[in-house]
Amino acid sequence: MDWKPDFSSEIPLYVQIKDSIKLKISLGEWAVGTKIPAQRTLADQLGVNRSTVVTALSDLIDEGLLEGNTKGGTRVVNNAWNLLAASPPPDWSSYVQAGTYYPNQPAIQQINRAEFQEGIIRLGTGELSPDLLPSAQMKKIFEESSLNPFALGYEEPKGNLYLRKQITAYLQGIGIHTSPSAILIVSGALQALQLISIGLLQRGSSILLESPSYLYSIHVFQSSAMKLIGLPMDEEGVRTDHISRYKKGHNASLLYTIPSFHNPTGTLMTEARRQDLMTICADEGLPIIEDDAYRELWFDNPPPLPLKARDPNALVLYLGSLSKTLSPGLRIGWVVAPEPVIERLADIKMQNDYGSSSVSQWAAAEWLGRGLYQEHLVFVREQLQMRRDHTVQLLQTHFKDIAEWSVPAGGFYIWLRLTLDIPMHMLFERACKEGVLLNPGSIYSRHTGNYLRISYAYAKQEELEIGLKQLAILIKLLHRE
Amino acid sequence: MDWKPDFSSEIPLYVQIKDSIKLKISLGEWAVGTKIPAQRTLADQLGVNRSTVVTALSDLIDEGLLEGNTKGGTRVVNNAWNLLAASPPPDWSSYVQAGTYYPNQPAIQQINRAEFQEGIIRLGTGELSPDLLPSAQMKKIFEESSLNPFALGYEEPKGNLYLRKQITAYLQGIGIHTSPSAILIVSGALQALQLISIGLLQRGSSILLESPSYLYSIHVFQSSAMKLIGLPMDEEGVRTDHISRYKKGHNASLLYTIPSFHNPTGTLMTEARRQDLMTICADEGLPIIEDDAYRELWFDNPPPLPLKARDPNALVLYLGSLSKTLSPGLRIGWVVAPEPVIERLADIKMQNDYGSSSVSQWAAAEWLGRGLYQEHLVFVREQLQMRRDHTVQLLQTHFKDIAEWSVPAGGFYIWLRLTLDIPMHMLFERACKEGVLLNPGSIYSRHTGNYLRISYAYAKQEELEIGLKQLAILIKLLHRE
Repeated sequence: MDWKPDFSSEIPLYVQIKDSIKLKISLGEWAVGTKIPAQRTLADQLGVNRSTVVTALSDLIDEGLLEGNTKGGTRVVNNAWNLLAASPPPDWSSYVQAGTYYPNQPAIQQINRAEFQEGIIRLGTGELSPDLLPSAQMKKIFEESSLNPFALGYEEPKGNLYLRKQITAYLQGIGIHTSPSAILIVSGALQALQLISIGLLQRGSSILLESPSYLYSIHVFQSSAMKLIGLPMDEEGVRTDHISRYKKGHNASLLYTIPSFHNPTGTLMTEARRQDLMTICADEGLPIIEDDAYRELWFDNPPPLPLKARDPNALVLYLGSLSKTLSPGLRIGWVVAPEPVIERLADIKMQNDYGSSSVSQWAAAEWLGRGLYQEHLVFVREQLQMRRDHTVQLLQTHFKDIAEWSVPAGGFYIWLRLTLDIPMHMLFERACKEGVLLNPGSIYSRHTGNYLRISYAYAKQEELEIGLKQLAILIKLLHRE
Repeated sequence: MDWKPDFSSEIPLYVQIKDSIKLKISLGEWAVGTKIPAQRTLADQLGVNRSTVVTALSDLIDEGLLEGNTKGGTRVVNNAWNLLAASPPPDWSSYVQAGTYYPNQPAIQQINRAEFQEGIIRLGTGELSPDLLPSAQMKKIFEESSLNPFALGYEEPKGNLYLRKQITAYLQGIGIHTSPSAILIVSGALQALQLISIGLLQRGSSILLESPSYLYSIHVFQSSAMKLIGLPMDEEGVRTDHISRYKKGHNASLLYTIPSFHNPTGTLMTEARRQDLMTICADEGLPIIEDDAYRELWFDNPPPLPLKARDPNALVLYLGSLSKTLSPGLRIGWVVAPEPVIERLADIKMQNDYGSSSVSQWAAAEWLGRGLYQEHLVFVREQLQMRRDHTVQLLQTHFKDIAEWSVPAGGFYIWLRLTLDIPMHMLFERACKEGVLLNPGSIYSRHTGNYLRISYAYAKQEELEIGLKQLAILIKLLHRE
């Protein structure tokens, strides 16, 4: 609830709560059929005792607006008007369940909500910390916007041409030679996957991918009735020895991979493995989605050239993004692919959202075109490397006896394998209650129940110190229980 | 093609063209299997004679890279590498055809492309003319961004809270009482439809809607295997006498309507019809999508209150947008609905694009919060009214004997019925060749083949004068042929 009671008012709290719930019901925000939040949740949100909430709800049950059930849930059953109508009002909960798109996993939904809990330490968040985002420079760019004004109208279906030219030049620097006409601007790499799922694939298709993978944590392909087929990984990246067999066995349509600083394992695919992968996929005629969102976040050495830079047979749909390096809020990414594919995806994007924000596209083009992006990358790499070093040190201090990990050469993540056997859902719940938010490995694969994705990109240094120490204590505690 | 030949070079044009096509093929932009543009199109794009293109293509056919077929189409059949691979490269054209999402109608694709043709007069475009977009004020807002800095990170799943608060206050002014928690920020009203289609409806559902309707021009519901069932309209809006029968006959899940300044007919639903519609839908338990994107564009009097303002039973999913009034490029719209519905749609939006651009959300909040939006609306209404008057005058001059129309009380559109019987696809093609772009009625329904959607919002006054005059001449010419 957005509303808060007025503690200085003479009106009793339970009456205020009753009235505000009545208002929500009468406005239709809590339509008939709505399951209202649990008593405890309401009490927490409103900052009152649970008994106050209980009193308010009982009154509303007596008045016939709410109905409790035996499981302790409470639903809206009436409002002031519905008794007058010939038919019952629409049962929105049945609509909510009818949609074809899968909801987020409950764990992800819980994480999405907990992220906005005040003071919580986010040990798994896959974003740059707010103090690594270039707010001052962004402000400056907008203050100087009269130098090169942006359009307020719709952009071309493939996206702003000037931005696509800047991206063409940028891609040249990482070995990808292409033209603006083979580039589509998208609202982040995630949207590219969404467009591919509805634009290029039949329902029931199979996608090969690394296991674990970020892709398991969203439902972009499964919601279009597609299957994800996991391939094992080693320290060089996805293993290629199963690809032919899996492709035939599952009639796979695509292979999805994050070769550089893989999410969630942090693995960097080696040069040899990249060559190997391209050879096998060319032999199999198996197209590849290369998700390269983390590529620029290297520490000592740049990663090997992208798969797309060694792609004479046009196997690769290449995804890039500014979300992990510059600003997630801009929502700007790109797809590089053969022109007919780009045209198909652009056509669907027009039907989905009429193109990405023109202001965001303009800002992205300024960052790239004025060389500011490269400057910013130097800063981000330095900062992330320091954060990685600090985090590895903390792990050595607190986790030496209870976990294993590799030191990533770039990106955001350390893939922590707990060597103690503990119930991970309890760890997640307990940590959350103690103000530490985790990304459990089970989000990224069914077989990684004893892993955690630790991100050194988001939490502040002090938070990492407190959070990781607290986590280690909690793990040992749970192990002893 | 982005590339243009160098006319000052000593290298013959056909060689330059050959080389540039070879490059596109070798880079995979024109992958094996790609159908390349027609000779005439290429010649036009490159600014050369068709014979020059023919020479270049013949050479490439001789070299084995291209293959012509009997129908005059030319495809890429080889590149320098694919002969070395064990398998043929992926056939991207089969992927392009495999996706579940419908492509745009050919007429719409043609319109989308022609809009970027230089000098074309756009008589049907449903956007504000660039000179009605508040570029100077927008620049000023960004220059003052230090007053109230914007975030570069991700926003909450439902969208920026400050923006949702501004929208809550705005909605109050049009009779809709709600809270920020019952609002979802979307990238334009179109995205809201997309989210509803995959989030609230089963495959195979039926949607009732006005016939004609803008909704027929996109495939947002049909791509999820849903059926659109058209309801007849009269001058008061959608007729309500068929709703009960159609609802039962087709087991309809929703009714979609544009009550204020309907797209494409310009009709304003009367107060009486609104009441009637709400009574029938309440009796039938039939939920409504109210698309209110044009409501603020009234001339003499504001339209009757929205359906959502008379919705005690929470029947209505309400859609609003800044695209038609302030800036299409911002890509900011909103949905108002019962909270469980908003939460479901927010969850799916997070899986589709991780939320709308934070810069766009910030700018939208500034416009609303600082009262600038209302000021701008006054200006836009005045300007649009002048444009409407001017356009009606032009129609009286040139179309009196060949068409019928009603004068709209707001919005963008005049729905022009041609009384002469002419082949409309030929009119479209001929007009396009003469530099006048039309939106034929057939885009909006199967039964409106003799209509045109005329928009007075986009083209300049002089363009309207020239374009409408030319159109009238062309119609009479075609009628005589």
